[in-house]
Amino acid sequence: MISPDLASHTAAQLQCQESLYKQIALRISELIEHGTLRPGERVPSVRKCSEQQNVSIATVMQAYRLLEDRGVIEARPQSGYYVRAQRWSPPPEPSMSKPAPRAVEVQVSDLVMQVVTAGRDPSLIRLGASLPSPELFPVRELHRALSSVGRRSPLTAHSYDAPPGNQALRVQVARRAMEAGCTLAPDDIVTTVGVTEALNLCLRAVAKPGDVIAIETPTFFGVLHIIEALGMRVCEIPTYPREGICLDELEARLNCCRIKACVFTLNFSNPLGSCMPDEKKQQLVKMLSEREIPLIEDDIYGNLAFGPTRPKVAKAFDENGWVMLCDSFTKTLSPGYRVGWVAPGRFKAKVEFLKYVNTAASASLPQMAIAEFLQNGGFDHHLRKIRRLYSSQVQLMTEAISRYFPPGTKLTRPTGGMCLWVELPSNVDALKVYHLAMAAKISTAPGPLFSAKQKYQNFLRLNCGNPWSERIENAVRELGRIITRVASEAGRPKNGD
Amino acid sequence: MISPDLASHTAAQLQCQESLYKQIALRISELIEHGTLRPGERVPSVRKCSEQQNVSIATVMQAYRLLEDRGVIEARPQSGYYVRAQRWSPPPEPSMSKPAPRAVEVQVSDLVMQVVTAGRDPSLIRLGASLPSPELFPVRELHRALSSVGRRSPLTAHSYDAPPGNQALRVQVARRAMEAGCTLAPDDIVTTVGVTEALNLCLRAVAKPGDVIAIETPTFFGVLHIIEALGMRVCEIPTYPREGICLDELEARLNCCRIKACVFTLNFSNPLGSCMPDEKKQQLVKMLSEREIPLIEDDIYGNLAFGPTRPKVAKAFDENGWVMLCDSFTKTLSPGYRVGWVAPGRFKAKVEFLKYVNTAASASLPQMAIAEFLQNGGFDHHLRKIRRLYSSQVQLMTEAISRYFPPGTKLTRPTGGMCLWVELPSNVDALKVYHLAMAAKISTAPGPLFSAKQKYQNFLRLNCGNPWSERIENAVRELGRIITRVASEAGRPKNGD
Repeated sequence: MISPDLASHTAAQLQCQESLYKQIALRISELIEHGTLRPGERVPSVRKCSEQQNVSIATVMQAYRLLEDRGVIEARPQSGYYVRAQRWSPPPEPSMSKPAPRAVEVQVSDLVMQVVTAGRDPSLIRLGASLPSPELFPVRELHRALSSVGRRSPLTAHSYDAPPGNQALRVQVARRAMEAGCTLAPDDIVTTVGVTEALNLCLRAVAKPGDVIAIETPTFFGVLHIIEALGMRVCEIPTYPREGICLDELEARLNCCRIKACVFTLNFSNPLGSCMPDEKKQQLVKMLSEREIPLIEDDIYGNLAFGPTRPKVAKAFDENGWVMLCDSFTKTLSPGYRVGWVAPGRFKAKVEFLKYVNTAASASLPQMAIAEFLQNGGFDHHLRKIRRLYSSQVQLMTEAISRYFPPGTKLTRPTGGMCLWVELPSNVDALKVYHLAMAAKISTAPGPLFSAKQKYQNFLRLNCGNPWSERIENAVRELGRIITRVASEAGRPKNGD
Repeated sequence: MISPDLASHTAAQLQCQESLYKQIALRISELIEHGTLRPGERVPSVRKCSEQQNVSIATVMQAYRLLEDRGVIEARPQSGYYVRAQRWSPPPEPSMSKPAPRAVEVQVSDLVMQVVTAGRDPSLIRLGASLPSPELFPVRELHRALSSVGRRSPLTAHSYDAPPGNQALRVQVARRAMEAGCTLAPDDIVTTVGVTEALNLCLRAVAKPGDVIAIETPTFFGVLHIIEALGMRVCEIPTYPREGICLDELEARLNCCRIKACVFTLNFSNPLGSCMPDEKKQQLVKMLSEREIPLIEDDIYGNLAFGPTRPKVAKAFDENGWVMLCDSFTKTLSPGYRVGWVAPGRFKAKVEFLKYVNTAASASLPQMAIAEFLQNGGFDHHLRKIRRLYSSQVQLMTEAISRYFPPGTKLTRPTGGMCLWVELPSNVDALKVYHLAMAAKISTAPGPLFSAKQKYQNFLRLNCGNPWSERIENAVRELGRIITRVASEAGRPKNGD
């Protein structure tokens, strides 16, 4: 709830208001960290806090919601907010990745296809694929939108929607892009079959077989796949688990590696969950634009921030059209609809041509249905719901891993998305764990999938997209047992962790 | 209507029955050709013919329907069948194409994108794109299938349908493949985003940039596009307007041109409408299999035979998996659904991997809807309807061209599909005609689109997918005027036609 007088505030005042609630949240966090407020204790009531801090009720509410999203406090009905019981201390974080400083060919497709094929078994507990449970999607509302628009415009639904794709959808996408700090016109956008096709088109538009593409490491294996299948090579850039790629290291590689393009997921990367601060994004865009190197930005997780506002995209800082922004509704509305889009900047004509060549057009009806759903205004409400859900699921998975995984385990601290990247003790072979877990009907994504040369042999990515349940808790416990057994059979860790 | 005793016939008897009605049709045709039966005269009644020829009523009915489909006779309500008035003699046919006997790079994309972009104007009379009018599709029935399956299986509709794609659809496709002489299992099939994606995946599976692909000439510009965008080259094979590529010429090219794969539309090719006889298909498959050269077969028009049965696919003769059969429901059920498939033979694993890499999956719901529609059994009825429609539309367009186009015009005799390939007098520049026609709000597809080096400068492809109307008749008349004007301004034809 926002107080009525807020309605008359200017943008600058709102900005100020926004940082105010963050300050309040920070103060409460500090009180908890320093032990002034201890687990299980009641935090000051909203009214009291408003008086104490001399801010509006709305601001305090916002601050408390942020703290709730972060799992720091919890609401108890009819009673107020309490400091959450910390029955665990989170494992330490992995450190920055350190790939070889040269371009390499990708060799990962056989392994990935094995894992993807095996992952189809419906009886599995799915901790592998980075996917929300389908029941978290607004299935009924979307189907209603689809039926209604299909009845209203039957001929459009059955006609080719030639590139750049559905106009109504592009209007909605352009409107929503403002939230990510981006000014886009509908005509800046080409719709695609998910982000997968968008990435293919962008890479084909700016690079040729043999060319070198800079990527984060670890990175989503789909990106490695695409690059491998196009006959391109990769240069893996060292990446911090919280802030994403190291710009100094990127600059060094740019100076020596003849990099043709970059493919980065700056907001809640997969698998790290890292999020690059907006000012670093600005630096990145400047660095690449000056060198005339295209940045292919995959923002598929950008809407899934755990906090109340989403981070900006790098495209927001793009003055000369070198950023090619790719996104889709796969992680937020429906994987099955396969509706994605790209804003290819200066490469628009080439990308539009390649879209026409690659699939001629995307299916019309799913595009129309999502446009209708967005126009009806249910998206923000839905986003708020799943952001809180994912945040709490990541939190609960973190706690479970702390309880059940052996000492020496390290863990990321994502602030969005739905993945956890787990570093196991260095003597644990993640592929062995993967196979043993599959035998116990638990899917995981083993670390070697996430690098060009199958490194990260003692890492796992775990999906937190499923609503927490006893079944999942048990699966994590079983996974912990398997890892402990593999670790003890392997003998002493190679290095002292 | 088929007589009840037919139900007990064996397959061999049915076969015999089938050739019987064709013989009857042939006899009637000969009577007409020789002037025994003249335009406007009544042909023998079904009962009389049955007595005269000593065959069943059903056989005569089948023969008369075939003749009706071919535009030779017409039914008049309550009166019987009459010889159609031939107020025209069809123009002669173009001769076999004669491309350069070497591999060349494709240079057609800029021109095609201009034409495709301009063709989007909804006020145009669409004689350009090879597309049926959307009102010819079973729009309501498909939407009902989609709504019903979406309500019944909402979670499936919203989930990834990972390659090889929707199981129910693959079952239906495998069943229908029998009609084309093909024995396929559901697991032999990968679903795709239309034939366009299928062709991309097949080419990427078997060839690399720089490799040479054999194609028909003239050929669909989409195929040229795909090959151009993949950085491959083409070797254009001389093609007969009735029977498709010349096998002797193909063999000569195979011996000298290091051809890596072939992309052929053997049934009702676009734009020629040529159909290779089944025994030549068998020869073709043998010739390529012996050399271990993959044949990528685009059968998108195969179901649109004007006669009562559809021709076989080359895949029917494929013993060693060298044929990669591509098809879609774009020309028969819905362009907007974007549902296609490929049976990639020995390259299945590679194609499935590339599908995963290229678009991850196709939209689930359109696949489910088409599977449901096919299962409910409405497809054959619908196919019969549109085959007769297209046949008559091609016939009416042929008549109109005979009336309105200048002397020296030549014309194909397609036996399926929905296109006519028109050779204009040799001094007529088809691009000039294209631009003048666009100014008069009539779209056409100029000949240069259909070859790697923009040959066929005095050819046009005309779409017969629209139900015949005065508006279309007027458009063809206007087109004739434009062509006559361009011809007279250009002076004497270059060679004496």
